[in-house]
Amino acid sequence: MDRRKFLRNALPELSSLRPFSGKQDQVYYMVTFVSRIGYWTDCYRGMRDAATFLGVKAKYTGAVLYDIGAEVDVLETVISQGPDGILLTVIDPDGLQSTIDNAVSQDLPLVTFDADSPRSKRYGFVGTNNYKAGVVAARYLGTLLREGKVAISSVPTQLNHIQRRAGFNDTLKAEFPNIVTSDALTVDDESTLTVAATKMTSLLTTNADIRGIFATESQGGAGVAQAVAETGKTDIKIVAFDYDPATLDLIDQNKISATLAQSTWQMGFWGMLQLYMVRNERIKSVSDWRGAGISPLPVNVDTGVVVVTRDNSQLWRTTNPPSTQ
Amino acid sequence: MDRRKFLRNALPELSSLRPFSGKQDQVYYMVTFVSRIGYWTDCYRGMRDAATFLGVKAKYTGAVLYDIGAEVDVLETVISQGPDGILLTVIDPDGLQSTIDNAVSQDLPLVTFDADSPRSKRYGFVGTNNYKAGVVAARYLGTLLREGKVAISSVPTQLNHIQRRAGFNDTLKAEFPNIVTSDALTVDDESTLTVAATKMTSLLTTNADIRGIFATESQGGAGVAQAVAETGKTDIKIVAFDYDPATLDLIDQNKISATLAQSTWQMGFWGMLQLYMVRNERIKSVSDWRGAGISPLPVNVDTGVVVVTRDNSQLWRTTNPPSTQ
Repeated sequence: MDRRKFLRNALPELSSLRPFSGKQDQVYYMVTFVSRIGYWTDCYRGMRDAATFLGVKAKYTGAVLYDIGAEVDVLETVISQGPDGILLTVIDPDGLQSTIDNAVSQDLPLVTFDADSPRSKRYGFVGTNNYKAGVVAARYLGTLLREGKVAISSVPTQLNHIQRRAGFNDTLKAEFPNIVTSDALTVDDESTLTVAATKMTSLLTTNADIRGIFATESQGGAGVAQAVAETGKTDIKIVAFDYDPATLDLIDQNKISATLAQSTWQMGFWGMLQLYMVRNERIKSVSDWRGAGISPLPVNVDTGVVVVTRDNSQLWRTTNPPSTQ
Repeated sequence: MDRRKFLRNALPELSSLRPFSGKQDQVYYMVTFVSRIGYWTDCYRGMRDAATFLGVKAKYTGAVLYDIGAEVDVLETVISQGPDGILLTVIDPDGLQSTIDNAVSQDLPLVTFDADSPRSKRYGFVGTNNYKAGVVAARYLGTLLREGKVAISSVPTQLNHIQRRAGFNDTLKAEFPNIVTSDALTVDDESTLTVAATKMTSLLTTNADIRGIFATESQGGAGVAQAVAETGKTDIKIVAFDYDPATLDLIDQNKISATLAQSTWQMGFWGMLQLYMVRNERIKSVSDWRGAGISPLPVNVDTGVVVVTRDNSQLWRTTNPPSTQ
């Protein structure tokens, strides 16, 4: 019996052990903005882990700068290559909508992660429930301070940051009546460490009574810590977001009180599984799920946050070694 | 070369086509309450589809009655059999907590679906965002009625129903100021058609001016429709929940205006995938995720709702044929 024939005969038996045939020619893309920051590393690592599990290929790309036009260009280039699915993080909820809607209309599986475009036709979103993350930040900083003026370093137009500020502000107002914050105490750091440092330095100069800062994105924590260091004050408490090495260093130096670690690995992992399932129409028992308006994918997956302080920062460093793609 | 040796040599090649080895001895359970109602059929079908995909076994069991003690007994029996994971729907958020916590402490993967126990140690929850579903119901019924008295048929202690009522009541109050509802207009239907019929008949007798009813669970819609039929009135609008055959029949007869279909298949499918991933520790790239406090599973998955009316009821009937386990 030749090898090929033997293998064909052997397959049913192997198949009970190995029930799942990978679609090894399928290629799935992760598309980001400010694509070279370390924040995306674990997102893509999760996607790669799921792609390995499924036996398909994963590729990473994105716009290098924080630039909506550049992200639209990258996304359109990826779409033109006919991928099997796209895991996309969205610089602006509305700016990418028409590109997303066109892709989905052409039957391309597209799921957003980390930052959503909720009015678009994307199948669903995988990421942090950012409002709830803002609530966690407010309770942590509120308990540290109890009273006084609080500044925010954030990105005004990006939906995840809008939601973090909403959860933060609502919770301060409801649970910490002696803490004050406002739009005038909020700076746009453009997801850039140096911008956060410069603008917060200026704000701290004009508002010498600021006692706490919430930085809603990964570059802001180190930026505002630099601004605080320049003032020479040691009593300003900072709550940051994400677990960049620079943020973890500042936590260990007691310059940042805590950071909220997002489950970035999960975003890539579950997002990749979702793309695969819709691409390969795994709803075996429902004959016409598209016709019935039934989505195979959840509309929203909350991957949660973990509060990282000096007590557990080392674990995050060890288990999530920083690396670049 | 003997067959076994040949197969061993052949495996690396097959492995590139079939990257995933099923754990065919693993057994995962779905545990429910009022276990024989049709509502669970598609939940379990989704679980079975995922189990087939993964090459593991799925089993179904539950408490026949709406009885907390009975569900605790069934859950403890399942746990004693050493399963590889449990997908559990919870009759009462606190009543099953200690049993859940014991199971998770013993390293048993446990995910809740459909109805959660949020203070328990379950890895996460897969199901409808019930508050948002209540918002959808309020907007649908509110737009139909615009004004008047609205009754609710629900289950007071079950968290998913508490949340549906909260979303419904908050939205009526905020967006439909001329519609009135209250606790006095809310009946406990005990997830039972005949109880819903009896109690709503009584409420309609004492409140002859009720113009709309929201039934928050699968048996209530048919029950309150029966109560409305007994009054002889034809102008009371009903919004139901789920797509039981009886509910779809009443929609086609214009006796129920709409029903909110939950993505029951998804709950079983994604819940099963989650159990498998935590059981088999698929986070390959994070060496000690348990130690770092990182969960591999999302804390919350919102599977969404679809509004089913006379316009699309036939599709739901066709694609989700009613069957019992």
